[in-house]
Amino acid sequence: DAAAGAATATGVCATCHGAKGISAADTFPNLAGQKKSYLVGALKAYRDKTRNNPMMNGMAAPLNDQQIEDLAAYYASQKPCE
Amino acid sequence: DAAAGAATATGVCATCHGAKGISAADTFPNLAGQKKSYLVGALKAYRDKTRNNPMMNGMAAPLNDQQIEDLAAYYASQKPCE
Repeated sequence: DAAAGAATATGVCATCHGAKGISAADTFPNLAGQKKSYLVGALKAYRDKTRNNPMMNGMAAPLNDQQIEDLAAYYASQKPCE
Repeated sequence: DAAAGAATATGVCATCHGAKGISAADTFPNLAGQKKSYLVGALKAYRDKTRNNPMMNGMAAPLNDQQIEDLAAYYASQKPCE
């Protein structure tokens, strides 16, 4: 759930993607309001390395399925225009 | 430029991603307001198949660099909250 994802998001992901999902650099995607299923799929692909990005492979490696669901729910629930 | 990207976006990409970048299904990412450089990188990765997705590999295959820039500019310029 989104609240459970908030701690991981703000502690880890926020560095590049922003605490609210508006990212810090033009090459890092915004995550605010992104589709939850897309985010779950992306994190799982990074975790199992079917999608290659050294940074994100490292970030996703330790995440379990529940943490992935929570992170995806958190960023999907953020408002991209605030 | 975004105006040049609009025709391709509305004619091709809109089916899954929406004409304004709010996608039609939970598994297709929203593109509205996404970071331009991230979108360029993603399309090029799909085109050269360093990022695997059968649908997107097919979509990106015929695009040249200018069309990729134009599409990225178009969707990056869309407002995610309208």
